Amino acid sequence: MSSQVYNRVALIGLGLIASSIFWASKRAGLAGHIAGSARSAETREIAREIGLCESVHDTAAEACADADLVILCVPVGAMSAVMQEIAPVLKPGCVISDVGSVKRDVIKAVTPHLPEGVHFVPAHPLAGTEHSGPRSGFAELFDNRWCLLTPEDSEAPEAQQLRAFWEGLGSNVDYMDPDHHDLVLAVTSHAPHLIAYTMVGVADDLQRVTDSEVINYSAAGFRDFTRIAASDPTMWRDVFLSNKDATLEILGRFTEELFALQRAIRRGDGDLLFDYFTRTREIRRGIIDAGQDTDAPNFGRSR
Amino acid sequence: MSSQVYNRVALIGLGLIASSIFWASKRAGLAGHIAGSARSAETREIAREIGLCESVHDTAAEACADADLVILCVPVGAMSAVMQEIAPVLKPGCVISDVGSVKRDVIKAVTPHLPEGVHFVPAHPLAGTEHSGPRSGFAELFDNRWCLLTPEDSEAPEAQQLRAFWEGLGSNVDYMDPDHHDLVLAVTSHAPHLIAYTMVGVADDLQRVTDSEVINYSAAGFRDFTRIAASDPTMWRDVFLSNKDATLEILGRFTEELFALQRAIRRGDGDLLFDYFTRTREIRRGIIDAGQDTDAPNFGRSR
Repeated sequence: MSSQVYNRVALIGLGLIASSIFWASKRAGLAGHIAGSARSAETREIAREIGLCESVHDTAAEACADADLVILCVPVGAMSAVMQEIAPVLKPGCVISDVGSVKRDVIKAVTPHLPEGVHFVPAHPLAGTEHSGPRSGFAELFDNRWCLLTPEDSEAPEAQQLRAFWEGLGSNVDYMDPDHHDLVLAVTSHAPHLIAYTMVGVADDLQRVTDSEVINYSAAGFRDFTRIAASDPTMWRDVFLSNKDATLEILGRFTEELFALQRAIRRGDGDLLFDYFTRTREIRRGIIDAGQDTDAPNFGRSR
Repeated sequence: MSSQVYNRVALIGLGLIASSIFWASKRAGLAGHIAGSARSAETREIAREIGLCESVHDTAAEACADADLVILCVPVGAMSAVMQEIAPVLKPGCVISDVGSVKRDVIKAVTPHLPEGVHFVPAHPLAGTEHSGPRSGFAELFDNRWCLLTPEDSEAPEAQQLRAFWEGLGSNVDYMDPDHHDLVLAVTSHAPHLIAYTMVGVADDLQRVTDSEVINYSAAGFRDFTRIAASDPTMWRDVFLSNKDATLEILGRFTEELFALQRAIRRGDGDLLFDYFTRTREIRRGIIDAGQDTDAPNFGRSR
């Protein structure tokens, strides 16, 4: 497969994404040495136990010493503090990147701390699972998924090099403007997550339907929502707080549309409902044809 | 496994559920003969081609002749007309059942047409996939899923016999009051479907984000919604029109809650969001422990 793209890489934060980057990078031999650090002692201990990273460090600054690429794999709200900590040890020519689900706010948080000669190439791999923590990563997570880069200059060598790294991890790579990224992700990720969290919260909170009824009878549709509503709470809190405007815009559109369908139900307008439900089938077909989901019934769940 | 429960069974309508009943019944030897009928000539032709039903009939009345059990597997809105057609040929002692996703309205539609000596035992198997049509069924669809029966008298022999049939198909069986059924399903199925349809409709309709962006970047959460939003439009139109009150009640609760979360985002109330997202993780754990979903990341999608 690919060959080495960076000599020394540092992963700051060792959760699902960082651990998957490590295993995917090992698979393809993309880095000479990968150092890791995590704030929690328990996470570092697990990392050492399972061989996650060639070296595990107690502080982010130690992990970043001599790094050619540093990837911030912490929640969006923690990035500014991490940058402040590591800035003094970064060597000239080092590239900073991240894996945050929002880009405008991350750029705002990271850029002021960049030392002379250090470049920032923001990145967002559109891949994940509902599991979190250092044990949840696997080498195939990024295969055939998209990774969006939002550098100031996509022709710059540091952007091209990071592109090669993500392609080596298995991703398709695209460049995008940060604001457009945040709007696109509000549609394809942030609003769906908030809606799923809301629906699960409503079901949990009803007096007239018990939790065990909700649980036992969830296969009729509800269980699909619970997967993304089981995602990491800290990460998602930060996503919504830092992509506030785009998320609220899409949720506004969503509510408007939901009211129109509620009105159709109340008035008994079957034609409107039928036409709406017919139209939404096509998007799934597009997603399957683009290799972004499986055509197997029920996502091919083992039965 | 099980042995014969009915001598002659008729399946009216040959879509996903009917075809799965047929294959699951064959697997366990639950019926002496299964007759089928479908309104569309194309469906009947496919049924004959793939050996779906021991006899395929052009009309529902022909399929029901001499039947001990008739299962209405047509959309909820079509049940009254089918009952009107078959009532004259039903033999005394025959049991009518259905697989409709709502129960109060189906009882209202079916009961007036019941001939003397014919009993109605409403049923709802909580199982399905996003695929439809005669080719989409498979014998394992009901395994370890729940089937809810809403008979007037759960002690009556016709209710007990239908219970044995559904257990033979692989289901867990429970009895429920029809109105409570409709409320429970509004939470676990009908509201989630409408919300998924709405979110997919919004994404499809945006001017500033292209369809190909939505499709390519859907793995960040959105694609989970598209599965249930690809379900059969006719069936779902009828579900919403016939379970209007309970669906609108749950959607009202949903909107209330969504507004509270939107407000928290706007005000930057991270604690409220974090607590909410932590609480919703537990329900998924319950669903997995109850054997109603898989713990494999991303539903165990083949990658």
